[in-house]
Amino acid sequence: MKILALSGSLRANSINSALLRAAARLAPVELMVTVYHGLGDLPLFNPDIEGRSIESVTNFHAQVANADALLIASPEYAHGVTGTIKNALDWLVSFEPFTYKPVGIFNASPRAQHADAALREILKTMSAMVVEEASMTIPLLGANLDEDGMVSTPSVAAPIRGALLALSEAVVRATEQQQE
Amino acid sequence: MKILALSGSLRANSINSALLRAAARLAPVELMVTVYHGLGDLPLFNPDIEGRSIESVTNFHAQVANADALLIASPEYAHGVTGTIKNALDWLVSFEPFTYKPVGIFNASPRAQHADAALREILKTMSAMVVEEASMTIPLLGANLDEDGMVSTPSVAAPIRGALLALSEAVVRATEQQQE
Repeated sequence: MKILALSGSLRANSINSALLRAAARLAPVELMVTVYHGLGDLPLFNPDIEGRSIESVTNFHAQVANADALLIASPEYAHGVTGTIKNALDWLVSFEPFTYKPVGIFNASPRAQHADAALREILKTMSAMVVEEASMTIPLLGANLDEDGMVSTPSVAAPIRGALLALSEAVVRATEQQQE
Repeated sequence: MKILALSGSLRANSINSALLRAAARLAPVELMVTVYHGLGDLPLFNPDIEGRSIESVTNFHAQVANADALLIASPEYAHGVTGTIKNALDWLVSFEPFTYKPVGIFNASPRAQHADAALREILKTMSAMVVEEASMTIPLLGANLDEDGMVSTPSVAAPIRGALLALSEAVVRATEQQQE
């Protein structure tokens, strides 16, 4: 099963990107979690160029279509979603394979409630299937844990693994429903 | 007095961009409303490159610093702000001259309530001064008015002119308060 992980921060030392890399390492062997590195290469969304062949967009679309589920971790900038994650989602609004895709949302900061709520509203409006059991707030900000620390700290690693399992179960359920 | 107008849509036929161009034409002679055309050239915000000299960012910052007030019109994409306008604002979060800048918000669609609310929350968090008397919802979507139509339709042109006057009055008040 393939999970595509999107970080809403382009910062090299982003705690959200580290969280997704930790999730990739903690994933059970049957789950392949790939952290996507191309969100910074996407042009700003413009409906006028949506139909054109743009390499960064084509690649993003292909990876999304190929994924069984998405995992998003994104910081809050000024009580809003980051321009980077919203721009990525704007490129998916009219991309049919995104519809009904199971999505887990990791929130690295308990204080970041505006962006988390906005992200859920946006994803639901886009007809994504937000999987609540695969979504969680992890109080990482200020915890001084890097990627290795997250992987090796049981109180952090266990819920991450649990969320990934819940996401994979949602994929299985969704597939079964489609076949019925 | 200088007002910098930002459209959250990069679409050539954007109703929000047309609204701002109409506002520029309707502005009283003492107000210079300039529609900014560079939001699509900004890179996606990344704190790691924030300090570097990037021509599109430098130009945007200079225009914002030089403006007495901002006017924003931005569509709603999937119940959220557009990636384009949020990315532009992300570049202003740590830009000191933006703080306390009077901002008017034009909303071209009465249905677009999520993005309007999110935009206000973001701007207030960034310590902008959202001028309510200079902000309004104009039911343009479906009204089939282009830029010329907005300028020549009194029921649309009059409130636009009123909002611009309110914005200029807010600038005067803010300047007076700073001098006291």
